[in-house]
Amino acid sequence: MSSNQATRIAIVMGSRSDWATMQYAADVLTDLNVPFHVEVVSAHRTPDKLFSFAETAHDNGYQVIIAGAGGAAHLPGMLAAKTLVPVLGVPVQSAALSGVDSLYSIVQMPRGIPVGTLAIGKAGAANAALLAAQILAQHDAELWQRLEAFRRQQTEDVLENPDPREEA
Amino acid sequence: MSSNQATRIAIVMGSRSDWATMQYAADVLTDLNVPFHVEVVSAHRTPDKLFSFAETAHDNGYQVIIAGAGGAAHLPGMLAAKTLVPVLGVPVQSAALSGVDSLYSIVQMPRGIPVGTLAIGKAGAANAALLAAQILAQHDAELWQRLEAFRRQQTEDVLENPDPREEA
Amino acid sequence: MSSNQATRIAIVMGSRSDWATMQYAADVLTDLNVPFHVEVVSAHRTPDKLFSFAETAHDNGYQVIIAGAGGAAHLPGMLAAKTLVPVLGVPVQSAALSGVDSLYSIVQMPRGIPVGTLAIGKAGAANAALLAAQILAQHDAELWQRLEAFRRQQTEDVLENPDPREEA
Amino acid sequence: MSSNQATRIAIVMGSRSDWATMQYAADVLTDLNVPFHVEVVSAHRTPDKLFSFAETAHDNGYQVIIAGAGGAAHLPGMLAAKTLVPVLGVPVQSAALSGVDSLYSIVQMPRGIPVGTLAIGKAGAANAALLAAQILAQHDAELWQRLEAFRRQQTEDVLENPDPREEA
Amino acid sequence: MSSNQATRIAIVMGSRSDWATMQYAADVLTDLNVPFHVEVVSAHRTPDKLFSFAETAHDNGYQVIIAGAGGAAHLPGMLAAKTLVPVLGVPVQSAALSGVDSLYSIVQMPRGIPVGTLAIGKAGAANAALLAAQILAQHDAELWQRLEAFRRQQTEDVLENPDPREEA
Amino acid sequence: MSSNQATRIAIVMGSRSDWATMQYAADVLTDLNVPFHVEVVSAHRTPDKLFSFAETAHDNGYQVIIAGAGGAAHLPGMLAAKTLVPVLGVPVQSAALSGVDSLYSIVQMPRGIPVGTLAIGKAGAANAALLAAQILAQHDAELWQRLEAFRRQQTEDVLENPDPREEA
Amino acid sequence: MSSNQATRIAIVMGSRSDWATMQYAADVLTDLNVPFHVEVVSAHRTPDKLFSFAETAHDNGYQVIIAGAGGAAHLPGMLAAKTLVPVLGVPVQSAALSGVDSLYSIVQMPRGIPVGTLAIGKAGAANAALLAAQILAQHDAELWQRLEAFRRQQTEDVLENPDPREEA
Amino acid sequence: MSSNQATRIAIVMGSRSDWATMQYAADVLTDLNVPFHVEVVSAHRTPDKLFSFAETAHDNGYQVIIAGAGGAAHLPGMLAAKTLVPVLGVPVQSAALSGVDSLYSIVQMPRGIPVGTLAIGKAGAANAALLAAQILAQHDAELWQRLEAFRRQQTEDVLENPDPREEA
Repeated sequence: MSSNQATRIAIVMGSRSDWATMQYAADVLTDLNVPFHVEVVSAHRTPDKLFSFAETAHDNGYQVIIAGAGGAAHLPGMLAAKTLVPVLGVPVQSAALSGVDSLYSIVQMPRGIPVGTLAIGKAGAANAALLAAQILAQHDAELWQRLEAFRRQQTEDVLENPDPREEA
Repeated sequence: MSSNQATRIAIVMGSRSDWATMQYAADVLTDLNVPFHVEVVSAHRTPDKLFSFAETAHDNGYQVIIAGAGGAAHLPGMLAAKTLVPVLGVPVQSAALSGVDSLYSIVQMPRGIPVGTLAIGKAGAANAALLAAQILAQHDAELWQRLEAFRRQQTEDVLENPDPREEA
Repeated sequence: MSSNQATRIAIVMGSRSDWATMQYAADVLTDLNVPFHVEVVSAHRTPDKLFSFAETAHDNGYQVIIAGAGGAAHLPGMLAAKTLVPVLGVPVQSAALSGVDSLYSIVQMPRGIPVGTLAIGKAGAANAALLAAQILAQHDAELWQRLEAFRRQQTEDVLENPDPREEA
Repeated sequence: MSSNQATRIAIVMGSRSDWATMQYAADVLTDLNVPFHVEVVSAHRTPDKLFSFAETAHDNGYQVIIAGAGGAAHLPGMLAAKTLVPVLGVPVQSAALSGVDSLYSIVQMPRGIPVGTLAIGKAGAANAALLAAQILAQHDAELWQRLEAFRRQQTEDVLENPDPREEA
Repeated sequence: MSSNQATRIAIVMGSRSDWATMQYAADVLTDLNVPFHVEVVSAHRTPDKLFSFAETAHDNGYQVIIAGAGGAAHLPGMLAAKTLVPVLGVPVQSAALSGVDSLYSIVQMPRGIPVGTLAIGKAGAANAALLAAQILAQHDAELWQRLEAFRRQQTEDVLENPDPREEA
Repeated sequence: MSSNQATRIAIVMGSRSDWATMQYAADVLTDLNVPFHVEVVSAHRTPDKLFSFAETAHDNGYQVIIAGAGGAAHLPGMLAAKTLVPVLGVPVQSAALSGVDSLYSIVQMPRGIPVGTLAIGKAGAANAALLAAQILAQHDAELWQRLEAFRRQQTEDVLENPDPREEA
Repeated sequence: MSSNQATRIAIVMGSRSDWATMQYAADVLTDLNVPFHVEVVSAHRTPDKLFSFAETAHDNGYQVIIAGAGGAAHLPGMLAAKTLVPVLGVPVQSAALSGVDSLYSIVQMPRGIPVGTLAIGKAGAANAALLAAQILAQHDAELWQRLEAFRRQQTEDVLENPDPREEA
Repeated sequence: MSSNQATRIAIVMGSRSDWATMQYAADVLTDLNVPFHVEVVSAHRTPDKLFSFAETAHDNGYQVIIAGAGGAAHLPGMLAAKTLVPVLGVPVQSAALSGVDSLYSIVQMPRGIPVGTLAIGKAGAANAALLAAQILAQHDAELWQRLEAFRRQQTEDVLENPDPREEA
């Protein structure tokens, strides 16, 4: 499972198939040179693992947990119930309801246990990684600079190709 | 909390305020003379209690668990993840989304962990109790008869007052 | 149509095309070594058959009826109106509305007649079978053990392949 | 229940409480001097009555059945499954889902069994009566004239009070 | 455009592309040996034609108008506003909103002007034809018999192939 | 109905009850000193008036038509079908569906006939007036200045009361 | 980027990929011989450009801005907040939510800052161009005539091919 | 506006009326003894203030921005576009659409600019404050302890009153 001392972000997901979505979080963190841990933790099939993961998350050094799940998506909220480490939730697009079920199951948490929720699907996964990095960057000046560079680049990519009719 | 030897149904709910909905389950079971246990078990505020409740449910003699919750309603699904006792879920009507969030969070369980879901709100609570009683009645001839009487009465109530313009 | 003495579960569906969904219920029951009956019963095209099916369900020994239907899905609710045998409803994914119509038509039953509803589509079909098996298992110790084994296996499948980036 | 020889329209509804909606159908028919029958017929609580009502509808002289129901509204569709008399469905506004569940349960009928569906709630009830009257009026010149007068009046009511800022 | 003396049903639609849906109405009427007229009438691109079509519908002998349209579907309601001939609306499935926009635009008519609305898409088109035929059949004993035969056949098709696992 | 030579904006609505919403458009225009015409024009109850209104709109000097309607809201789209004068649509909040039906009926116009749609309800009515004024202001320097003043004032109202905890 | 003195319409969009939708606006303007400017302006990736674009829009001679965006679509509303030039919004169809998110993000503007919103997707883009042209045409008699010709043609295309069963 | 050196959290909102929701964020922070800044910043009425607020947020020492807005809620996303300080969005419940519009406008941000979104309404506001505190607590051991105490208390409140039928 990877893991060096400095791994401060964990990316977990409810099933292997969620990796198709969650890899976009991994890609962003890789680009930002932020180490991360990746693991499948199923709220419904491995509830005990969910609990032990959450209970040890702080001691394991995680400062942000990114959790992706689809349908009746309980993983982010249940992790949040078991740890004070901030949990960012990614609603994975589902078959019948296109992720509206995932979104509601993650974002509509009751008062007392927060999950910071991102957009449905790939954009949400990528943005969870960016938000996690922004959180870490408050105490990591180099990461802050890499994020500034990322933002600058993304702005320039638009500015340099203002005409959508031309090849970029 | 009540509890006699023969209590085979537990009614649990995510917060005290859910009682306004879940009491309709209790009323039905009382009418049917089916003993039941009632308890607040919050997935998010008391996750450990949720687990221990589910882990001991079978040994405690529960043959059906009725679980009501609202919003990002994780209680029914997480109970179901931790026990083979059948779980019936009641989506409690929520403030902003009228219980659509509760419904999706309960019914859209992934393959492997089932929750039998009833209607949003009071009708769903009452029906969870009826379905639980029907399940028990397969091995309880007297309860089966009481259910038949309940059905007969409910049919007659309609048949005897066919004209909605008159006082019933 | 199959049928040995011990068949306690019936899987019915509104049309032949629903088999693409409902076979996932059959597969689960086959895996669990639970005999079952399969039949097309259309609420709208064969209403009389629906009634006679429901009226004889108890005498035929069914202890759970799994009913799948799509669109304005009336099969589960009408079966439930005609028998005290517990009915589990599976909303089949529909063309235009992705099964939201099926879901609402099945789950939003009025007070008095319950249908335990599962998720839209294949996951719901599989879970209906699991829930039916859990109901039977309360009085069938061997089935209980097979369900425990099923759960254990499904947990281990996740635990043994924690890294979604690797081949399972 | 009323009934003279010439009663060609039946207004049925799933429960007494639906009268608050369905009376708008009755009012329209009264205004148009069209006799009608009113009766509570519950798909779920009185399924046998539903069947016998539908089976005798044609012989009883009904040429249109107006059926109102809420939630998992199966009454219109099941009536339609059992008779060739045209069925017009009125989705009654429901508590949690505002009648979207009623609408989908009524309108999304599968190929083969039609229900002509009107708007959710009171407007739908009134319009079901108007549509029923229009159907009858094709073979009832006097009713056609009364409908023309109704339309003319409703047009004039708007034309005569074009300024919404003044008292009508 | 066809047209013999006895053509009592018109099938109109907002654009040529709606024919992919509305042909299912035509097929049903053809099978039932009911003559019909087919025409494109666009509420938005040919509003004057819409009006003249509606104004002459009764004199042209139409006893039912079947109108299909998608998106902001104004054709059925505007026809209904201009004639007392019963209008049946078919919501055509739309690109972005899957026909929910079509459905709401057709079914949610205000009090005073009814449109009998069928299901979204092909099933709705076929059912509009069936409902139209049922309306005509009240005064056409032969058509009534053909409809009875149609129903009988459709019932038998299900009854004769009860096992979905076998080839039909 | 008011009317001076310079009236370039018409506010029409489907029924008198829509005035509760549409008066917010009138208020904005009054504040901006823009003369306007107000009239009830019902697509369904006065379709001929709708057509004559639209046909004469340009000659009557209207440069923008603001049209509010609820439910199956056909007024804005049908006006737009009959005139080249820009039509701005205001979805009036409806009883059962909260204006989602109104919104879809107005905004989802097919290619070829545009309606510029504003928000559901009062905010939408006020904004329709503002957008109409902005359109006129391109050729009316004084109105442009009044709009600039309006914007400035609305900005200052926020800037001067930045703390929501204090009385404004 | 184009730009001649007379360019009075700007088409902007949040990303290059929106061009697949927004080109339908460009095509309409090209057909109508209305010069236009096209540019990618991202609310989120180039917020400063958004502001400067809006601040200079009036001085640059734009009389209408057509803005397309998808998902949490902030471009149209933020442009509208920064200029009095009328803004027409086009909700681009999004991956998970089919453009309902885009639609709500654009149309539900609060009182004070209007965006005239068109349909989701290609039809909306084409109609934004038509509405923009209609706005300009009030002071451009030749454009008015071209729009009349466009409308006439579009009507004739329907009238000349009334039978959808034949090749057009 | 408050402000001491150590204020690391800003609570901003689109209008004064949002305070009814956002005060629940303020209350949580007060309870946790976390200083915060409160200010109305309207994306649409004070866009320049929005930009200057975001541009100076980091230098002003804010480590988390909590932003609440309703309807076409652009405030959180536009703040996020202009700063690397993490932005948590609170969808304020709206009049017509109950906050679904607010939710989609906030959570469905495109790849590149994240907003961590909480539940609609008061629960979301309170949870935004808790999540902000959890973020800060990673580098503030005393706050971590206060959060642990808060969690413990909230758990005990449930545990001590397990029976919803009794007075708490």
